[in-house]
Amino acid sequence: MKWCRFSTGDGISYGIIEGDNVVEVEGDPFDGYNKTSKSQPLASVKLEVPVIPPTFYAAGINYPEHVTWAAKMRGEEPVLPEKADIGYRAINALVPNEHPIIVPKDATELVQYEGELVVVIGKECKNVTQAQALDYVLGYTIGNDVSERTWQRGDRTMWRAKNTDTFKPMGPWIVTGLEPDDLHVTITLSERVVGEYDVKSAIFGVREYISEMSRYLTLVPGDIIWMGTDGATENMVDGDLVEVEISGIGVLRNKVVWEK
Amino acid sequence: MKWCRFSTGDGISYGIIEGDNVVEVEGDPFDGYNKTSKSQPLASVKLEVPVIPPTFYAAGINYPEHVTWAAKMRGEEPVLPEKADIGYRAINALVPNEHPIIVPKDATELVQYEGELVVVIGKECKNVTQAQALDYVLGYTIGNDVSERTWQRGDRTMWRAKNTDTFKPMGPWIVTGLEPDDLHVTITLSERVVGEYDVKSAIFGVREYISEMSRYLTLVPGDIIWMGTDGATENMVDGDLVEVEISGIGVLRNKVVWEK
Repeated sequence: MKWCRFSTGDGISYGIIEGDNVVEVEGDPFDGYNKTSKSQPLASVKLEVPVIPPTFYAAGINYPEHVTWAAKMRGEEPVLPEKADIGYRAINALVPNEHPIIVPKDATELVQYEGELVVVIGKECKNVTQAQALDYVLGYTIGNDVSERTWQRGDRTMWRAKNTDTFKPMGPWIVTGLEPDDLHVTITLSERVVGEYDVKSAIFGVREYISEMSRYLTLVPGDIIWMGTDGATENMVDGDLVEVEISGIGVLRNKVVWEK
Repeated sequence: MKWCRFSTGDGISYGIIEGDNVVEVEGDPFDGYNKTSKSQPLASVKLEVPVIPPTFYAAGINYPEHVTWAAKMRGEEPVLPEKADIGYRAINALVPNEHPIIVPKDATELVQYEGELVVVIGKECKNVTQAQALDYVLGYTIGNDVSERTWQRGDRTMWRAKNTDTFKPMGPWIVTGLEPDDLHVTITLSERVVGEYDVKSAIFGVREYISEMSRYLTLVPGDIIWMGTDGATENMVDGDLVEVEISGIGVLRNKVVWEK
């Protein structure tokens, strides 16, 4: 099942994608819904961010090759995380599929993509085992954790490096019923493949993160967990088109626009 | 003007506190409201967290004496932050006035209060000057940034050190029309004064944070900014009552309950 959020004449609605059409629903995938009789071609709707999360979680460093690459860039020895310690991103930075990534003019040239799997929580959970964890997932979408590396290194927090407005494209929709460890991520920059990896090469998987987080915090419907990226990343330049494809989900596509 | 959120028979409503009574409103302080004819004694209502923020910002280290104390605890030289780099906390951890702070049984004894001013944003803003900044503030409330220092030091992020469920008491209500630099904070632990400071001794004030943040991100109605605490902090033990009083606002009061 494919869930989207889209603009209607009256505001924003959840919809179910069936083939090439979107069926408008009353309600939402978390608290219950009814299909309406309204349907329109997917190609004609303006997609919105597929969920506005109560809390926006992000694994950060969670893939061995990415850790090794990042350490090398800093001239340090790589240190793999020993525990599934979750981090945070901010709501202001979320933009949907096809929305431009707008880079402030005082950014350095080190503005980079990070294509990654996004987990959408469907039901409240606390203290769940790894075996139970996926029962609390609604589905999966795609995120691009855009990062300004100079700010990431120099600032005390990642507030502007990772949470500048438009730096968190997410979408295009949420797909239910997937096994996360079967998924494959491919990232292209202006049609050149710049990275690809298997989700299952993560240091800590979806089940481990949900189980570990839920020992101390309550996950609630709509919360999202960005699972981190693998490999090296490259600079994006003005006019680039960055696409993150995940098998079984689709493609998240955003243009890069440098503020003049 | 004093805004609160409280439980009614039907759910949760915003209310305006007038003297010893709460007048129920339709709507909210951000998008508009109408007073209803329903009013009841403040002493009889169950207060809720006064706002659920879209994004929960926190200044973290923002007072010289607190920085000096924290560095000393780690055996390091104090380093004052050079810029107003904002951090984040998480929605799951918010609890209202009078709700217990529930400490997980695997926490160490280093569970400490941090009493601080909370800014509530009232209007969307981007790129505002320090002189304009307070025009975008709805009002102020009180926060207790409860912290487990062992986890804070040892984990890669502050996810459980600061965002375990119930670790972010906030309230009791929001007061409008205050000058933040006139406010004074007093923290008591089971009726013993354990800390007090002037808000204006912050390294970066409310105006500076809002203006700097708004260069890169859009602040929206309901966003909250926790301004950090000053001085040393002490351990709380099972059964302690921690109270954070801010002049002109009121007292945030929470009991400490250690999980058995």
